[in-house]
Amino acid sequence: MGERFTKGLATIKQYITEEEATRVVDSDTLADIAPDLRKMIIEFAYGDVYSRPGLEAKSRALVVITAVVTQGAEPQTKTHIKRGLHAGLTPTEIVEALLQLVPYIGFPRVQNALTMAQQVFQEKQLKVK
Amino acid sequence: MGERFTKGLATIKQYITEEEATRVVDSDTLADIAPDLRKMIIEFAYGDVYSRPGLEAKSRALVVITAVVTQGAEPQTKTHIKRGLHAGLTPTEIVEALLQLVPYIGFPRVQNALTMAQQVFQEKQLKVK
Amino acid sequence: MGERFTKGLATIKQYITEEEATRVVDSDTLADIAPDLRKMIIEFAYGDVYSRPGLEAKSRALVVITAVVTQGAEPQTKTHIKRGLHAGLTPTEIVEALLQLVPYIGFPRVQNALTMAQQVFQEKQLKVK
Amino acid sequence: MGERFTKGLATIKQYITEEEATRVVDSDTLADIAPDLRKMIIEFAYGDVYSRPGLEAKSRALVVITAVVTQGAEPQTKTHIKRGLHAGLTPTEIVEALLQLVPYIGFPRVQNALTMAQQVFQEKQLKVK
Amino acid sequence: MGERFTKGLATIKQYITEEEATRVVDSDTLADIAPDLRKMIIEFAYGDVYSRPGLEAKSRALVVITAVVTQGAEPQTKTHIKRGLHAGLTPTEIVEALLQLVPYIGFPRVQNALTMAQQVFQEKQLKVK
Amino acid sequence: MGERFTKGLATIKQYITEEEATRVVDSDTLADIAPDLRKMIIEFAYGDVYSRPGLEAKSRALVVITAVVTQGAEPQTKTHIKRGLHAGLTPTEIVEALLQLVPYIGFPRVQNALTMAQQVFQEKQLKVK
Repeated sequence: MGERFTKGLATIKQYITEEEATRVVDSDTLADIAPDLRKMIIEFAYGDVYSRPGLEAKSRALVVITAVVTQGAEPQTKTHIKRGLHAGLTPTEIVEALLQLVPYIGFPRVQNALTMAQQVFQEKQLKVK
Repeated sequence: MGERFTKGLATIKQYITEEEATRVVDSDTLADIAPDLRKMIIEFAYGDVYSRPGLEAKSRALVVITAVVTQGAEPQTKTHIKRGLHAGLTPTEIVEALLQLVPYIGFPRVQNALTMAQQVFQEKQLKVK
Repeated sequence: MGERFTKGLATIKQYITEEEATRVVDSDTLADIAPDLRKMIIEFAYGDVYSRPGLEAKSRALVVITAVVTQGAEPQTKTHIKRGLHAGLTPTEIVEALLQLVPYIGFPRVQNALTMAQQVFQEKQLKVK
Repeated sequence: MGERFTKGLATIKQYITEEEATRVVDSDTLADIAPDLRKMIIEFAYGDVYSRPGLEAKSRALVVITAVVTQGAEPQTKTHIKRGLHAGLTPTEIVEALLQLVPYIGFPRVQNALTMAQQVFQEKQLKVK
Repeated sequence: MGERFTKGLATIKQYITEEEATRVVDSDTLADIAPDLRKMIIEFAYGDVYSRPGLEAKSRALVVITAVVTQGAEPQTKTHIKRGLHAGLTPTEIVEALLQLVPYIGFPRVQNALTMAQQVFQEKQLKVK
Repeated sequence: MGERFTKGLATIKQYITEEEATRVVDSDTLADIAPDLRKMIIEFAYGDVYSRPGLEAKSRALVVITAVVTQGAEPQTKTHIKRGLHAGLTPTEIVEALLQLVPYIGFPRVQNALTMAQQVFQEKQLKVK
């Protein structure tokens, strides 16, 4: 484990639980065909990018949620809503960010994203105030 | 001017200067073919959506910048970077948000958006620290 | 229920059955996290936009089907094919609109949309002539 | 000139003037690198697809305008607005179709498309009623 | 079966097995609503385009895989990974092409595509070296 | 200049001339606002990704051209067509790859890309055979 991987792993812990971080290190579902993908995500996305100063963790999470919702990347929408909650976004802030997207990307993608947010909030027994 | 238009106009002033707000009311470049577009933007986007509680103005601006960059909507990228600055985002926060997008949308759209951010910062004589 | 909601509800009945309209009023699957989304859809999408004069209902439906197919927004493709049928589009017109998209968006999204159209036509026992 | 090319050329005349049709046959700006592109557009897009029965010409034009606007394909937006006018769409119908897109694709792409529509209407001295 | 269909069928056999080719001719899941879609795919996509000289079959497959992954067109991603393997791409080349996309389209769509590639390789008992 | 930067710089020379490589090191148009972007492109895109074994340089270039054309990322289309030529793609292979995209992404983006390819070929006095 090089320096960038260590830094990435330290950074990702702002966005996921200790238990999930252990799973990131110990198991990799794509290990048989693309073991370097996980490495790139930890080293580049978390080690090089998320770890940068100048923008707080929950704002970074907000930016990433917005990007995956705008692209319509569905499994990632759920993943990054969870990471945003862990980084300190409230359920209300997430819902408001999704509604803020309506005038810019239209109802369809926002509606799909709210359905995924609802599933995450139910799993975690969180309420929007 | 109904209640929603008034509310929208009050809200948009968090994102643009008084002078620009006057222009929004007095002139409308699409007035000859679609006078209702400006009305929809003020009433719906600003009056109904941006004005909602639960997410601060600079976070709303961050979400909108991210959406238009992810879509590759170029004139809007420049417009919303300006509005984000007015709402309190620093040039550094905007640059960091754009770099945060690299692992999620790739270099091409981020590079185009940074070029537009640079133009805005030069016009406004702002520096990234 | 304000004036825009009433107008939206009257307009949406050109696109859905009475029974579905009742469901729109009485139940809202996202009510616990984003009760205002339904309100925005009824008031803004149907009350302000679909209700405008100058383009007939079935042409509006055709435009919306095309937009969601081009975006690849899947649940909405099925929803808006149903609404288009209710607004007076024939199954043949819907299939022709989808085939017309092949030279502009390519086969993949058209093929996925035709599969969804087929499911809707089977549920409603409709035939393409 | 085979049968499909002849059919395509007859069909495209529903969407462009005689003068433009002559230009399509006599000059081809991409002839030096991809002479077959024009052939594919005439034979496949117009000969095979636009010429199909079951959906009238102006509805086909509406579908194509919507697709290119949703994609953000700018030169094509202007081209297909012109073709739509030639096929019988009124300026009002085109503007209404673009406004109908706001709730589905958001303001940015609609605003860009309306600006292009405005340019076309000015060139042709057409008014929206 | 006209000349273009015959040529398309001959060409598609570079990308699918004899057994699949038979299925393409004998059964068509969209035959009841859009029998011409299959015809267009065979005649236009395979007969006119894939059959062109100047780029080898496995490079054409690489281009098509990249396009459908970049669009996020999921069922087509799996289909075209299979066709690429049949045209001579190795599992390693496919994985490398997907990883090459990370800096240009971001991790989310690449991750989804690698999951689909993994399923195809497992079905076909192929290993990445 | 760390190891990844050195590796990236060695790799990018497969895609650009010595003169351009010097410019990459000595000047950076975004240096005042985002000096790390160039670093990320050299270190991550070229040092980590393009440099991987398992897929030859000209196939990597083909994948990247396809991705930026499918996204409609215009300045990058021209850049990567140039890099593809430098990596060994012939003008014919590039044109064929673009035509191969027609059935998957439609005519509009292919037509725009061919226009940019034509400009590059003219600048470099290259002919398509």
